[in-house]
Amino acid sequence: MSGFSHIDERGRARMVDVSAKPETRRRAAASGTVRMRPETRALIDRQEIAKGDVFAVARVAGILAAKQTAGLIPMCHPLLLTDVRVDLETTEEGVRIEASVATTGRTGAEMEALTAVSVAALTVYDMCKAVDTTMTLTEIRLLHKEGGKSDRRIVNGQAPEQP
Amino acid sequence: MSGFSHIDERGRARMVDVSAKPETRRRAAASGTVRMRPETRALIDRQEIAKGDVFAVARVAGILAAKQTAGLIPMCHPLLLTDVRVDLETTEEGVRIEASVATTGRTGAEMEALTAVSVAALTVYDMCKAVDTTMTLTEIRLLHKEGGKSDRRIVNGQAPEQP
Amino acid sequence: MSGFSHIDERGRARMVDVSAKPETRRRAAASGTVRMRPETRALIDRQEIAKGDVFAVARVAGILAAKQTAGLIPMCHPLLLTDVRVDLETTEEGVRIEASVATTGRTGAEMEALTAVSVAALTVYDMCKAVDTTMTLTEIRLLHKEGGKSDRRIVNGQAPEQP
Amino acid sequence: MSGFSHIDERGRARMVDVSAKPETRRRAAASGTVRMRPETRALIDRQEIAKGDVFAVARVAGILAAKQTAGLIPMCHPLLLTDVRVDLETTEEGVRIEASVATTGRTGAEMEALTAVSVAALTVYDMCKAVDTTMTLTEIRLLHKEGGKSDRRIVNGQAPEQP
Amino acid sequence: MSGFSHIDERGRARMVDVSAKPETRRRAAASGTVRMRPETRALIDRQEIAKGDVFAVARVAGILAAKQTAGLIPMCHPLLLTDVRVDLETTEEGVRIEASVATTGRTGAEMEALTAVSVAALTVYDMCKAVDTTMTLTEIRLLHKEGGKSDRRIVNGQAPEQP
Amino acid sequence: MSGFSHIDERGRARMVDVSAKPETRRRAAASGTVRMRPETRALIDRQEIAKGDVFAVARVAGILAAKQTAGLIPMCHPLLLTDVRVDLETTEEGVRIEASVATTGRTGAEMEALTAVSVAALTVYDMCKAVDTTMTLTEIRLLHKEGGKSDRRIVNGQAPEQP
Repeated sequence: MSGFSHIDERGRARMVDVSAKPETRRRAAASGTVRMRPETRALIDRQEIAKGDVFAVARVAGILAAKQTAGLIPMCHPLLLTDVRVDLETTEEGVRIEASVATTGRTGAEMEALTAVSVAALTVYDMCKAVDTTMTLTEIRLLHKEGGKSDRRIVNGQAPEQP
Repeated sequence: MSGFSHIDERGRARMVDVSAKPETRRRAAASGTVRMRPETRALIDRQEIAKGDVFAVARVAGILAAKQTAGLIPMCHPLLLTDVRVDLETTEEGVRIEASVATTGRTGAEMEALTAVSVAALTVYDMCKAVDTTMTLTEIRLLHKEGGKSDRRIVNGQAPEQP
Repeated sequence: MSGFSHIDERGRARMVDVSAKPETRRRAAASGTVRMRPETRALIDRQEIAKGDVFAVARVAGILAAKQTAGLIPMCHPLLLTDVRVDLETTEEGVRIEASVATTGRTGAEMEALTAVSVAALTVYDMCKAVDTTMTLTEIRLLHKEGGKSDRRIVNGQAPEQP
Repeated sequence: MSGFSHIDERGRARMVDVSAKPETRRRAAASGTVRMRPETRALIDRQEIAKGDVFAVARVAGILAAKQTAGLIPMCHPLLLTDVRVDLETTEEGVRIEASVATTGRTGAEMEALTAVSVAALTVYDMCKAVDTTMTLTEIRLLHKEGGKSDRRIVNGQAPEQP
Repeated sequence: MSGFSHIDERGRARMVDVSAKPETRRRAAASGTVRMRPETRALIDRQEIAKGDVFAVARVAGILAAKQTAGLIPMCHPLLLTDVRVDLETTEEGVRIEASVATTGRTGAEMEALTAVSVAALTVYDMCKAVDTTMTLTEIRLLHKEGGKSDRRIVNGQAPEQP
Repeated sequence: MSGFSHIDERGRARMVDVSAKPETRRRAAASGTVRMRPETRALIDRQEIAKGDVFAVARVAGILAAKQTAGLIPMCHPLLLTDVRVDLETTEEGVRIEASVATTGRTGAEMEALTAVSVAALTVYDMCKAVDTTMTLTEIRLLHKEGGKSDRRIVNGQAPEQP
């Protein structure tokens, strides 16, 4: 009716009932960028060589946030994550973050991957904000997801593998 | 040393010690966009007219997330928020979110505003993902902040009001 | 000994060990009422026609609370909920709330349904308390539960289907 | 416009902005009852004499919940509680719970007192549900609140002290 | 490479991928001691005889903490606990705590047992700190774990049962 | 009566009422050790030289846990921390952790410092447990606390500075 599975015929928000779905192994990956001044990125690069703490803190924040996704996103189903990894690297634009998340469950883990990227990006922002107030979180999106009904649906800037 | 206030001279992450700062009234605003297909935005527009639940759910998620910021962003100081508002509207690009947050405290509330926008955006994504897998969270940034040492610092695409 | 499964023979609280129970599909429903002045209910009715936010906020709060039940109720087992819905309507007495919760797990989900109702009711109270200090949360109880050993046990004001 | 301080003129939920309010000492008390079969109450009475764990567990759950109120009730302001006490006793009807909460802050603590009572009541329900499925949470309401603009407003079944 | 399963070949922290592991029934037990002055222990002994609240509060805190382990320990996998018990007793040294935790999952529950002991010990400390500032949490360790690949591995001061 | 400020005259647990106390600046420090095999400590030493992630993850876990103390320890008052730092180093025995925490509040922050040390220690344990099952968390204690009524009380193995 509403066109959205999370909105019922009377316009009310709801979780989607996945009770009848089987548990399957699923994985999702997402990425995003914290755009920043070249000087800020250079500071991170220099600091990384020595110790790596900006990235280490953001990685931990992203991993913990992935596990809290169903507490943050109201209509998300709780999932038992079996793997989370969060990687950060400096690029031309600033810092690029990629998260990959796995579960065996009844729904996909794309919200967990996107939440990990977003919170890792917010953490990078927090740690750099004293030297750069122009930073922007940008291009946070799903890279691909596997498992479930539509196995290996590839999206967003990756060549779809389906014919 | 490191150039970052959150990294000490030996490269270790830390909270910034704000013990000696006075409490002042502060406000911060941030915005962001969930870029989506025109058809998805049109569905939200139609649904909004009837009941408004996509935006209502995202608004609640953003407000709750603002209050949890110090639990998500490791080096963030806890703050007692005295006001949070989160607004959503459809634009050419998709859905634009703006959050405004106030506190009386020893540090600014920009991370709370940015967290509210990010989690509201993730919630919009979650509620629309069954009809659109191309959505992107983009241009999440600080609009302005007031209070504290650098009163009324205006940033990011808004003309600074200081001479 | 104590007569309570949550109290051991020496009077100490404990979780009930459900390790040996099989996972089965289960559903529970609960309801409750926020009793209020007729004028307060009338305000909600008028506001509902326009936008629906009191109910939308309470619904989101109830759904999120259902997922946090094991963090609130000490002896509750954690469950992966596969469906949560929370409905609100105005009645003669005020606002009636009903929640229905599903899981595939080793214990029933009645505490999750009761927690969803209670927190949705507290949220209605919070949003109306500036205009009405006489509100009361009342008749919060289990409507029915299905699944597990005692499949389709119907309780509280619903005709039992067992002979 | 809407008649509710938590709903703005366009029908959107919001926190009430308390930024300009002074901090004052405030206290609120609430009560509620878990109605149950006389046999269930008798079991609690017997068990209480020996060790007291049903009440001890419910008391701890209520105190912890009071501190989590702003994470459960979306439009609630975070408060630093300076005192929480939760008392339980058996009555004719079942178990009566009373909570008293104090803070120095910009808003009253009635939601914290009501949340403490509700979660303590849910905990009593959880611990007794194996022996009694007819229990009902009832008469959860504010007893009185002090501090703030309307100092010593007494409500709900207590003689108002204002003329 | 690093020698630690939680550190990848480039030195970055990660969760261990347990996606391919089967779910098995597992149990872990841990213990620890709060060392304190004999007078403090004597106060607990006297108080225990009357009502038992120090131990009751610590037991509830430990059980709740076991369920929050994956939110506290960054690289821990979330687990659905099927049983948690926490016991406390006074000894020559002070208070000894033992926790036993069960799950059906893809990883062991030793972190949950250790977290339950640690938080119960911190709670004992908190409740006694006004009368004794010399307390020390000590000898927090795994007692044994069962289930998973290395079924019934006994460790730490308990005679191994494997030949 | 009971001799404990957290236990009332009838043996019931309660928070201590600090409503009437003034806000003062306070700081507390605590330490603890994860005792481990020399080979495990050597692995950390080698890994630290390269990248530092075991310590970085434990540091972040400890800082986040300090902010969650009042949610973990039932009778703890919530505090707005203004500074948290957590340091780790390898010693003869294994890994030594020290945490220092500051606040401006009505109660001391020793529980926050002890919680930071305990959770950082549990995190070290978690990251090393695949190579060493003999680790023990030990000697977790308060080093000193400043501020409040008993300014600069030094305890536990540090020479008291009061005459």
